[in-house]
Amino acid sequence: MKKLINDPRAVVDESLEGFGLAHADLVEVHWDPVYVTRRGGAVQGKVGLVSGGGSGHEPLHAGYVGQGMLDAAVPGAVFTSPTPDQILPATQAADGGLGVVHIVKNYTGDVLNFETAAELCASEGVDVRTVLVNDDVAVEDSLYTAGRRGVAGTVLVEKIAGAAAERGESLDAVEAVAKRVVANVRSMGLALAPCTVPHAGKPSFELADGEIEIGIGIHGEPGRQRVGLEPADVLAERLLTPVMEDLGFEAGEEVLLMVNGMGGTPLSELYIVYRRAAQLLSDRGVSVERSLVGNYTTSLEMQGCSVTVLRLDDELTSLWDAPVKTPALRWGV
Amino acid sequence: MKKLINDPRAVVDESLEGFGLAHADLVEVHWDPVYVTRRGGAVQGKVGLVSGGGSGHEPLHAGYVGQGMLDAAVPGAVFTSPTPDQILPATQAADGGLGVVHIVKNYTGDVLNFETAAELCASEGVDVRTVLVNDDVAVEDSLYTAGRRGVAGTVLVEKIAGAAAERGESLDAVEAVAKRVVANVRSMGLALAPCTVPHAGKPSFELADGEIEIGIGIHGEPGRQRVGLEPADVLAERLLTPVMEDLGFEAGEEVLLMVNGMGGTPLSELYIVYRRAAQLLSDRGVSVERSLVGNYTTSLEMQGCSVTVLRLDDELTSLWDAPVKTPALRWGV
Repeated sequence: MKKLINDPRAVVDESLEGFGLAHADLVEVHWDPVYVTRRGGAVQGKVGLVSGGGSGHEPLHAGYVGQGMLDAAVPGAVFTSPTPDQILPATQAADGGLGVVHIVKNYTGDVLNFETAAELCASEGVDVRTVLVNDDVAVEDSLYTAGRRGVAGTVLVEKIAGAAAERGESLDAVEAVAKRVVANVRSMGLALAPCTVPHAGKPSFELADGEIEIGIGIHGEPGRQRVGLEPADVLAERLLTPVMEDLGFEAGEEVLLMVNGMGGTPLSELYIVYRRAAQLLSDRGVSVERSLVGNYTTSLEMQGCSVTVLRLDDELTSLWDAPVKTPALRWGV
Repeated sequence: MKKLINDPRAVVDESLEGFGLAHADLVEVHWDPVYVTRRGGAVQGKVGLVSGGGSGHEPLHAGYVGQGMLDAAVPGAVFTSPTPDQILPATQAADGGLGVVHIVKNYTGDVLNFETAAELCASEGVDVRTVLVNDDVAVEDSLYTAGRRGVAGTVLVEKIAGAAAERGESLDAVEAVAKRVVANVRSMGLALAPCTVPHAGKPSFELADGEIEIGIGIHGEPGRQRVGLEPADVLAERLLTPVMEDLGFEAGEEVLLMVNGMGGTPLSELYIVYRRAAQLLSDRGVSVERSLVGNYTTSLEMQGCSVTVLRLDDELTSLWDAPVKTPALRWGV
């Protein structure tokens, strides 16, 4: 295992410490328990937005804390859910008096711990709504999941719900728009090579030479099938087709197309996948109105990518375009 | 070789095609010869800024085309200089009547081809100034270089000179501020694992298990030495110390600190390196006023990082903070 780390057990804390130093103008890192808030804390009179999950998917979630997106993020150990005792103070710190929306990727541990935290929050007087993200069309149930997994589509939920909260929408409205994104976003990924969890010290799965896994999870959970390496154009179609079929896209619709890197894939390769996905959408009469290409929901140094499509309407597009100022996503301000 | 590509010979073109589709609001990709310009072309009455070099370092340089940064970028084949017949039309397309600054990383092929292109431009009536970037303190001469190599510091030159051009400075002034960044920026990198150039099909160098290379070049050129893998804190110091010594930093100075990923390194590891580099600077009484952490000058999927320090003053800081709107760097607009 070759990694730029000190102690495998200190990876999350030391990385967060560096993150806090690098982005001290935008965020604040809290210790014992660990969570990250927007610099300056809760915005009074604004719905709070909190997300979290296992570490190892950076910049998800702490990289999306800031104006127009999350108020707080709660990182667990690598690929491990954060605990209710972290989620509770993060939620309280995010509450500006109108309540808080929890954006939770659909993994059993995350769901359970956010649920427990939400009950604790309620007993402390914070109105919490939970939005489950389950955009991954690869498998119906999986190693850590009842129902579909939440993957890169989470970034779009956080951005759009964050914009709705920022422009002063009510708790009901922010919850509703977040759920509308979930209903209209689908993803699927693949891996060329696995990643190694630092404290495990060995790759999370094995792939033979020339073999890849279609439908991989962001923790290396099994996908749909293993196949031999194929040209990027074929792979782009293998990812896009199930996504499109699931959402039942029709000619004339407008979408956001995201090609997300898993952490170890060159940007140039992501653009090659984007190229084919955009061509396929165009061939079907679907109009790509917005794009995002890069490492937004990673799996440490895993090599691979995912394709995400979000069905847009005027409101979602306008919320997507709204200013955002976070360490990992920033425009308009 | 496992890559998300189709034909190894089509990598640069197909990637650029995807890039152009994804960022059609910001850039325009031109073919035959290949170059990238800001959407809408040259801004009249503004000094033009052109950079370029071998592909494989994405988002460098095309990712930095846009408002407040480059007017045009000229990508060569992977790790291969662009040709004068590409650089000439790119420069003409960037000329808003005040002349053009070429920002050139110091590699023999790049220097020669940009020089030839500058002569052609002059005979076409375009006043071209050349700024050579040579921030890499690792080695004095190298495989492809007479004198120091240009590496990640190039991004800072492009951002700051771009801001000066955008606010209407003269050709002399833009050239001068670019040279001032070059005089005040130093970098050094390391590799944990090599990358594979698609048309070569095998890794550009070999590292034994547990062995890393200090002072690596962004094309995998030899650095200073190979050592066993050490903790990230030790490695951060190995990179930062020569950078600091070379620039002769003193207590009380203000700097920008950049930790750049080589393409295959998780963001979390870059923050661990950033943490230690920031601590070391703080220990020496140097104040980190601005930061940049991520994949900004890569070497395909190479695993490793570089540390860059730029000595700031009020003017450079204000130019750094100025709005920028490019595919890979964006704020304030």
